[in-house]
Amino acid sequence: MSAKFIVIEGLEGAGKSTAVSYVLDWLHEHGITCLETTREPGGTPLAEKMRSIVKEVHDEPLTIQAELLLMYAARVQLVENRIKPALERGCWVVGDRHDLSSQAYQGGGRGIDLGLIGQIKQAVLGDFAPDLTLYLDIDPALGLQRARQRGELDRIELEALAFFQRTRARYLELAVQDPKIHIIDASQTPEQVQTAINAVLEQALCIHG
Amino acid sequence: MSAKFIVIEGLEGAGKSTAVSYVLDWLHEHGITCLETTREPGGTPLAEKMRSIVKEVHDEPLTIQAELLLMYAARVQLVENRIKPALERGCWVVGDRHDLSSQAYQGGGRGIDLGLIGQIKQAVLGDFAPDLTLYLDIDPALGLQRARQRGELDRIELEALAFFQRTRARYLELAVQDPKIHIIDASQTPEQVQTAINAVLEQALCIHG
Repeated sequence: MSAKFIVIEGLEGAGKSTAVSYVLDWLHEHGITCLETTREPGGTPLAEKMRSIVKEVHDEPLTIQAELLLMYAARVQLVENRIKPALERGCWVVGDRHDLSSQAYQGGGRGIDLGLIGQIKQAVLGDFAPDLTLYLDIDPALGLQRARQRGELDRIELEALAFFQRTRARYLELAVQDPKIHIIDASQTPEQVQTAINAVLEQALCIHG
Repeated sequence: MSAKFIVIEGLEGAGKSTAVSYVLDWLHEHGITCLETTREPGGTPLAEKMRSIVKEVHDEPLTIQAELLLMYAARVQLVENRIKPALERGCWVVGDRHDLSSQAYQGGGRGIDLGLIGQIKQAVLGDFAPDLTLYLDIDPALGLQRARQRGELDRIELEALAFFQRTRARYLELAVQDPKIHIIDASQTPEQVQTAINAVLEQALCIHG
């Protein structure tokens, strides 16, 4: 079986980091030892510089257009310089966020035209896409409460609740249209979330331990 | 007369900085005292961070797609946060490079599809455009020789001669199509260049001292 790119998506506080570790555990247990993890935006030295522009709170307002372009600039660096090379040498990649985040946050949350986002995506990524995406669905009120308990919020996490409601609505809308995106109920207990993730991996990857 | 946005364009070593100072002198002499200068990419705190990613030589290759997106991310920051506010309060703006550079360098030099560049431009800048552009035309071999004498070259200045030949060809192609772009022969003496710039300003702005 060729190496796959698996992505964990979801709002702040949905439990993405924990889900990444569940996926890594499952893959390890199923004999996959060459594994890399990425996070977006970021994951290469230049993409991390772009991440800090996007995530930090600045005196100068970051326009929504610049935010979108920086997300894609960081993504193309990550895909070309890390994800594709890893997959080519047979290493599986587990990503904390990928393109679906731009569709949901910049498209749904910020209201940028999806046609434009699609054009930029096509121009910079072509047909590259994850083999499997696990979208951790959570009520933004609950997710933000969890994120706040974790510590200081970044520039995007400081948005109003309505922003995250629009983002979640777009996530769900896109997830139901795409058979490669699986929705996981992230309001469940960690054990239930892990069971649900394992079931999706088992079914989607057809690997039996 | 409302405040204008005047842009100086051209290859490395064409004499853009000197031309900016000629334009500033001319405007001052014609009674325009509220004047700002910008440079691209850059010109705001966030755009300068993007500039350093684009201009510095890094271990990680910067993809041509990320380069293009960063140019536009920096440009929209500059336009929204500095140029438009300056023009609105009646201040003239003289820019060292603007959108024509992306058309010429990323379009001509790098070979990125002009249709895509146009879509990104329209999406982030809308109909915003300079009132007047002075394109300083120079043979790239001569321009690069001048730039080298000036000191260390940045990441883009290290490109091969053929890159700058394609960039110049695109500059000329676009300049002849647009009545707001004036071509100045930058291989002339500084005095001749200044005379040519003054003549263009006199004619285009219809201000008499």
